[in-house]
Amino acid sequence: MSRFGMYVKFTAKPGERDTLVKILLEGEAAMQAMEECELYIVNVSDTEPDAIWVTEVWSNPEAHRASLDHEETKASIARAMPLIAGVESTTIRPVGGKGLRF
Amino acid sequence: MSRFGMYVKFTAKPGERDTLVKILLEGEAAMQAMEECELYIVNVSDTEPDAIWVTEVWSNPEAHRASLDHEETKASIARAMPLIAGVESTTIRPVGGKGLRF
Repeated sequence: MSRFGMYVKFTAKPGERDTLVKILLEGEAAMQAMEECELYIVNVSDTEPDAIWVTEVWSNPEAHRASLDHEETKASIARAMPLIAGVESTTIRPVGGKGLRF
Repeated sequence: MSRFGMYVKFTAKPGERDTLVKILLEGEAAMQAMEECELYIVNVSDTEPDAIWVTEVWSNPEAHRASLDHEETKASIARAMPLIAGVESTTIRPVGGKGLRF
């Protein structure tokens, strides 16, 4: 089973980035409990004030899909939605390097 | 000192992706030895056959810059250059999540 990675770019509505970061970080507790979530890093940009990038790595694509059905995740998405102007995601497949067990 | 993150997208010349992945992964030994390199993950795309994405996180921007002056890194870049059709990078600042010590 191959790993599943994503870069997700959220564009926050003006002035809402920090609140959206906070909501995205609240999801961390659930992620810590899911062994199949290997990486969930929330990033901001120093050049794009409304941008938030989330780096995710999951042990397999199914684990990622299943995480979206968790009640906690759904509640978090519902609270985040009104603050989001746009979402773009790039799906990638980690093949090696430092920071994951390969 | 804030962390420094990058997503670097390499577009390989046609047919050269796997060789380029190999060269990028050879850099891992040097990265493992650099404590300030917290993440260096080489990824491919299942939808863009020539694309390679590298996810990097460094303890600080200076450590990343200094790494580019290492003899091993420079030799690796010299070997990779002829295989690369394009490079785009996105600079990000990790603020929290799972997989790094925050």
